[in-house]
Amino acid sequence: GVLGSGDFARSLAMRLASSGFRVVVGSRNPKRKASLFPAAAEVTFQAEAVKKADVIFVAIFREHYSTLCELADVLVGKILVDVSNNTEINHHKESNAEYLASLFPACTVVKGFNVVSAWTLQSGARDGNKQVLICSNNQEAKRTVAEIAQVMGFSPVDMGCLSSACEIENIPLRLLPAWKIPIFLALGLFLCFFTYNLIRQVIHPYIREQKNKLYKIPIEVVNTTLPCVSYVMLSLVYLPGVLAACSQLYHGTKYRRFPDWLDQWLQHRKQIGLLSFFCAALHAVYSLCLPMRRSHRYLLIETAVKQAVEKKMTIWVEEEVWRMEIYISVGIIALGLLSLLAITSLPSIANSLNWREFSFIQ
Amino acid sequence: GVLGSGDFARSLAMRLASSGFRVVVGSRNPKRKASLFPAAAEVTFQAEAVKKADVIFVAIFREHYSTLCELADVLVGKILVDVSNNTEINHHKESNAEYLASLFPACTVVKGFNVVSAWTLQSGARDGNKQVLICSNNQEAKRTVAEIAQVMGFSPVDMGCLSSACEIENIPLRLLPAWKIPIFLALGLFLCFFTYNLIRQVIHPYIREQKNKLYKIPIEVVNTTLPCVSYVMLSLVYLPGVLAACSQLYHGTKYRRFPDWLDQWLQHRKQIGLLSFFCAALHAVYSLCLPMRRSHRYLLIETAVKQAVEKKMTIWVEEEVWRMEIYISVGIIALGLLSLLAITSLPSIANSLNWREFSFIQ
Amino acid sequence: GVLGSGDFARSLAMRLASSGFRVVVGSRNPKRKASLFPAAAEVTFQAEAVKKADVIFVAIFREHYSTLCELADVLVGKILVDVSNNTEINHHKESNAEYLASLFPACTVVKGFNVVSAWTLQSGARDGNKQVLICSNNQEAKRTVAEIAQVMGFSPVDMGCLSSACEIENIPLRLLPAWKIPIFLALGLFLCFFTYNLIRQVIHPYIREQKNKLYKIPIEVVNTTLPCVSYVMLSLVYLPGVLAACSQLYHGTKYRRFPDWLDQWLQHRKQIGLLSFFCAALHAVYSLCLPMRRSHRYLLIETAVKQAVEKKMTIWVEEEVWRMEIYISVGIIALGLLSLLAITSLPSIANSLNWREFSFIQ
Repeated sequence: GVLGSGDFARSLAMRLASSGFRVVVGSRNPKRKASLFPAAAEVTFQAEAVKKADVIFVAIFREHYSTLCELADVLVGKILVDVSNNTEINHHKESNAEYLASLFPACTVVKGFNVVSAWTLQSGARDGNKQVLICSNNQEAKRTVAEIAQVMGFSPVDMGCLSSACEIENIPLRLLPAWKIPIFLALGLFLCFFTYNLIRQVIHPYIREQKNKLYKIPIEVVNTTLPCVSYVMLSLVYLPGVLAACSQLYHGTKYRRFPDWLDQWLQHRKQIGLLSFFCAALHAVYSLCLPMRRSHRYLLIETAVKQAVEKKMTIWVEEEVWRMEIYISVGIIALGLLSLLAITSLPSIANSLNWREFSFIQ
Repeated sequence: GVLGSGDFARSLAMRLASSGFRVVVGSRNPKRKASLFPAAAEVTFQAEAVKKADVIFVAIFREHYSTLCELADVLVGKILVDVSNNTEINHHKESNAEYLASLFPACTVVKGFNVVSAWTLQSGARDGNKQVLICSNNQEAKRTVAEIAQVMGFSPVDMGCLSSACEIENIPLRLLPAWKIPIFLALGLFLCFFTYNLIRQVIHPYIREQKNKLYKIPIEVVNTTLPCVSYVMLSLVYLPGVLAACSQLYHGTKYRRFPDWLDQWLQHRKQIGLLSFFCAALHAVYSLCLPMRRSHRYLLIETAVKQAVEKKMTIWVEEEVWRMEIYISVGIIALGLLSLLAITSLPSIANSLNWREFSFIQ
Repeated sequence: GVLGSGDFARSLAMRLASSGFRVVVGSRNPKRKASLFPAAAEVTFQAEAVKKADVIFVAIFREHYSTLCELADVLVGKILVDVSNNTEINHHKESNAEYLASLFPACTVVKGFNVVSAWTLQSGARDGNKQVLICSNNQEAKRTVAEIAQVMGFSPVDMGCLSSACEIENIPLRLLPAWKIPIFLALGLFLCFFTYNLIRQVIHPYIREQKNKLYKIPIEVVNTTLPCVSYVMLSLVYLPGVLAACSQLYHGTKYRRFPDWLDQWLQHRKQIGLLSFFCAALHAVYSLCLPMRRSHRYLLIETAVKQAVEKKMTIWVEEEVWRMEIYISVGIIALGLLSLLAITSLPSIANSLNWREFSFIQ
């Protein structure tokens, strides 16, 4: 059974029907709404629909939950699936599912399907996340809903008892929250270092020697900026651990909470580290592209011509050769090690390591 | 208990015995077959074996299920594990497990272990997939079989009730079905663009100016072909979404099924996108290799010599320098963005994103 | 309830309290120990604590389990969670959890939380592995402990019955055991080939022609060494499969165990293959860096100057051009194929392939 006639209710009814379930839709105005639903779904009055169904998807807004109170008698013993979402994180004190459960103590409430969009329901779980997070205080009801989700082509994930509903309801509102600060940090650092390098490599030679080096902006200036950002970010990954250890030594205990800013910082280390790796990788690619450029080719030919005209046969500077060889080989080793760190931060790799192995690699 | 004496039955008995289980093998001719099984497994007549075992692996072909009917009395209340596979996808109307369940209504049928090969059973789950998909209508029986799988070193995955058996039986027959069309598409596009570039860069200069440019075939022609393929593939990822939206606007409803060809196309977007990324990455590697080539070196030296002989000191063309700098930096940014898309399509990353985050990145 | 007052007990009490559980800590000397625990946890005598709690975490060493025997009466019917670890793999004959279960047959013993460190408990499961492996002979008790783990922010994983406890206790002691032999193998091979190449490319020309080629050590010698290591490792991946097939043909049966050394070798193929890929990838990066070096630049200019002075206009050697073009393009294709193999060995990708697809790709 499905209560409601919104976009989600219709998509849900459509998907349930196409997965082979018999679907009854309960509406206040079945005649007008019937045309909105697929032909396979029977559209009838709410009380009728509830009587015919064992599992009822409540696809209406939290604000209208109380309008269902008139159905309280027929709802006794049924499984109510709360599929609702909020518009803000932690909007209400208690989660929608717990609120529903408090309104209908004689029903079993299961939270689920809210992490799935109406579009995914219509088109099937094709790309991205196929998981449907489910929680309930009743094992049997949870299992029933999980099996429905499976038949519909999703992967049900058991999230424990109904108190997890709040967490599940917050998930679809999340937009990469752990990445915001690190990304702004990286952009800020990039801007600072870019300005400094722009002044040093382009503006300064122009003012002092009237040399036009503007062509350096897209690649050379960016390429000297990236490793600076990468280094600072990498140090920001390891600094908070040191600060935390100092704080523990200073207070003489491991069991005191860290100040909020340090706690936040500790929590963002993984993202900061990945951005540091990203900058390092970009630096590697930019560096590898240097000999491909026309400017590199022209400078090379001009030097050769100058040497030839002056009949200087040798140009070899042992010190410069060694500096570059060592610079490149250390760079490759550093990138290799950072890649290893980045690979172990993939969820599926991290899950196959114990903490001893994880900290060994770190 | 194991019924059957084929390759799979023997591997299963061997693995069960080496995992510490007591194994009874039921055969029609125990004396002749005993030598085929490991010493730890007791080989006896079918009825004997069934009496001694609680969980019975039915390792015989579907065609011979009916021969077990004579054992119906002793089988009452036992757990039958159907490990069979078909030779074609959806070969029979009902799955083998459901057919077995219909033959023995007094038994509990569990589908499982069919996704595991005889070789994996013998050698242990070393590389690749360790999952054993299990489904049954009886929770208790499913749990028992799951625990046996765990002790044998596999990861049991609960696939719900017995109606999933059909899906589980089709899995081992699958050979990257979603990749076939995209790969042929990519190969076709590659051939077209390769021919065009071959004519333009090699054959045309040969006919018109008698210049031998054959050395360009392995790298330069391939390198100009790859980004063309990549671009066309990338546009084919986003085109069907636009077509689908147009179709919805035209019909005035979101609840109408798309035509089959559009539906197929929408389902292959992920694979087409990954191949597009693969071509782009190859193009990047090929481009980076360009300055490593002898031909590049020779052309450079010849130009320098020509300049030196003519005493032309400068060769700098500002426009060409800028074109290359911008071309390279835009290329790097595009590759970085495509890499991000490719990383989020890894199953373990996609599972940790909600659909809002996934569509934001897309 | 928590029994014990060590580091782990305190972290556990702290985490439980901050996750909203009511925590009772049982200690032999509650007055002295109370200050060590967070204020939210009630610290009392062991018997008192046990009476008040349904789920009791036994955070004491295996050696002191027998001291709990005096609490046997009050412990009847409680769920005991064994969180202990050993200091050596397979230190005792039976696992700690099974030993605890044998001491208190009237209790339900659940193994869990041992894979989590005290530090992770304090700081929350931030990076790395969030999994808590749980096993028990009692489904209900397992579920209770799994839900506690979930509320604490971990991902409980059902590992079946208590006989898995031994395996779970060994996990935190593991330090990449499958990688040790392959890494030493790779290092050994690297040393051998490096010495050979050093003699050939640096020492030999120095002795014979007094040419100082020391600058070649950091990049060129390493770069010619890496593909040798990679090739030998790759052949070591496929060789044991051939040996195993020969052994089977020789003995005329597939059901005979391989000798131990071959078995070990077969089990390390994945790691050897990944190291082979790592060397190949490093070789690619080193090769791409070659034209970036000063030495490359100097040699190029010197050749050009020499040519210009001698007025030789052409330097083109068709054979050398072709050799390099083919060498590079074959190298790129080989690296692309190896990358594909490496990607399919990621756990989350391998889990989505069936064995037919996996062996097709291999």
